[in-house]
Amino acid sequence: MKLATVKNDTPDGQLVLVSHDHSLGVVVPEPYATMAAAIADWGNAKAVFESLSAGLQEQSADCIKLEDAMFMAPLPRTWAWLDGSAFIHHIVLIRKARNAPLPEELYERPLMYQGISDQSLGPFDDIKLIDESYGLDFEGEVSVIVDDVPAGISETDAAGHIKLLVLMNDVSLRNLIPAEVKTGFGFIQSKPKSAYAPFAVSPDELGSAWKDSKVHLALSTRYNNEFFGHVNGDEMYFSFSQLIAHAAKTRDLSAGTIIGSGTFSNESEDSGFSCIAEQRMIEKIETGEMKTPFMKIGDRVEMEMLNGDQSIFGKINQIVS
Amino acid sequence: MKLATVKNDTPDGQLVLVSHDHSLGVVVPEPYATMAAAIADWGNAKAVFESLSAGLQEQSADCIKLEDAMFMAPLPRTWAWLDGSAFIHHIVLIRKARNAPLPEELYERPLMYQGISDQSLGPFDDIKLIDESYGLDFEGEVSVIVDDVPAGISETDAAGHIKLLVLMNDVSLRNLIPAEVKTGFGFIQSKPKSAYAPFAVSPDELGSAWKDSKVHLALSTRYNNEFFGHVNGDEMYFSFSQLIAHAAKTRDLSAGTIIGSGTFSNESEDSGFSCIAEQRMIEKIETGEMKTPFMKIGDRVEMEMLNGDQSIFGKINQIVS
Repeated sequence: MKLATVKNDTPDGQLVLVSHDHSLGVVVPEPYATMAAAIADWGNAKAVFESLSAGLQEQSADCIKLEDAMFMAPLPRTWAWLDGSAFIHHIVLIRKARNAPLPEELYERPLMYQGISDQSLGPFDDIKLIDESYGLDFEGEVSVIVDDVPAGISETDAAGHIKLLVLMNDVSLRNLIPAEVKTGFGFIQSKPKSAYAPFAVSPDELGSAWKDSKVHLALSTRYNNEFFGHVNGDEMYFSFSQLIAHAAKTRDLSAGTIIGSGTFSNESEDSGFSCIAEQRMIEKIETGEMKTPFMKIGDRVEMEMLNGDQSIFGKINQIVS
Repeated sequence: MKLATVKNDTPDGQLVLVSHDHSLGVVVPEPYATMAAAIADWGNAKAVFESLSAGLQEQSADCIKLEDAMFMAPLPRTWAWLDGSAFIHHIVLIRKARNAPLPEELYERPLMYQGISDQSLGPFDDIKLIDESYGLDFEGEVSVIVDDVPAGISETDAAGHIKLLVLMNDVSLRNLIPAEVKTGFGFIQSKPKSAYAPFAVSPDELGSAWKDSKVHLALSTRYNNEFFGHVNGDEMYFSFSQLIAHAAKTRDLSAGTIIGSGTFSNESEDSGFSCIAEQRMIEKIETGEMKTPFMKIGDRVEMEMLNGDQSIFGKINQIVS
């Protein structure tokens, strides 16, 4: 099952069920006309999606032709966005780049912060350059959307609450991060609005690539029309189930909470990168100097995840303006 | 103007306009029947409140008698809760208690984290003791609710976006904090659901005690039926306008965003405390030993702010269960 949210001049948009070739959508009627409403009553909403899927197959009159300009983020605003950092290699490189010590419990507990979740960008929305000195960077990652999760849930039980997966660009302002991390209080100024690929998909859409609550596929990033990364999810150290259990240790998670993997990162440099900061770090290690600048006006970043020749989430394609 | 949210078996509750003696309420009709809807269209909602206030004065048939058991938090769930730590004395004491260094930019930039905002507790809801070893503590503070705030707003302009003030208990799990602060990523497990006093009030309700975007009144805390603190807001170092400008540096704030002062804290020990952690620190300094334990089942915390003999926000009165 693939779902998208199309613009209708409301903050939550209109939910549509999407055909496998991404060309057609069926408008989901009330009471599940928004992703927020659907995820809050997932069992019943899913039954409605199944009844609507016949219309897609027959390309019935109810179908609308989907175009890039229609898409919002699949869940344009939600109650909570809890972003893990489950690719240890990313943490190691980024801390080296900041001359910061590694977290003491690097392999025992995931890093996680709560970020802005109320005004997410669509897949083709511009990234606004507020100030070039802030060090604008992209971060490619996969996140899961959960239904209601009770506090104290086990890792085993957490897996059943993963209802949808999404692909996202967790926009970061690198030069504002060190001061915020030093406070211990997490990221407010250094993590502005994130962008999402158009399609939220149920885990079964990934087939055998969804295993042990991890996505065993590569996240492809192109930067200014050139290869930048093809980074596999295999090296995710903490699974999504572990991230959910960590997030829910002392709090219930509301339906619609998004839990992030953190930037996809592989030990092999042949994989390239899912953010500029890692490339800069490798440059520093190899040449003593960080060469690649952060993003400037007109720069373009594209992200996609393919399973064979099938695009799972559709594309993120953003320019800086 | 005073507003409250009463239970109606929905997550957002029913908004009511409240009489100055807190005994009566008028149900606010659609489209402003929830605080979330009202704050999203504040100018028009305010005009409706003004037209309803006549009914309160006349104690018309539309009035309902308000009782403690009816109240939810004034804004039971919202998009973002950004909690500052604007009482420097609190930071100094708490860091001493943790043997942690002081933030380098203590007087230059406020500490701020994003916390859970989707399932706030009402003023008389129990605080659930998940595990006594977590070190359950209360924190008394005042917060503001803003309407839509554009990114990059100045401190001067930020003041105009403060629409309501609320009193809250920012529940904390002290023994889980050090590990989270060390990561630099902020508080996920150590800050469970907060509780709010029943009434959200417009700044003019404070009269001359609302000045320079600070609350110049004392927050009174009773713990297990005894005096615990009478801590004045005068010593708030960063004003709410400064906190809003800090929060909005690189992000728009959605209407309904709550910005917190952090725990009320005074240099004079005669004022007592707004959290147990500070009392424990003073005990350690004076006797070498922290004596007061954190909260246990059956413990009661009460918070209130009086202006003369008038309670501004009503009372928080919670027991641990």
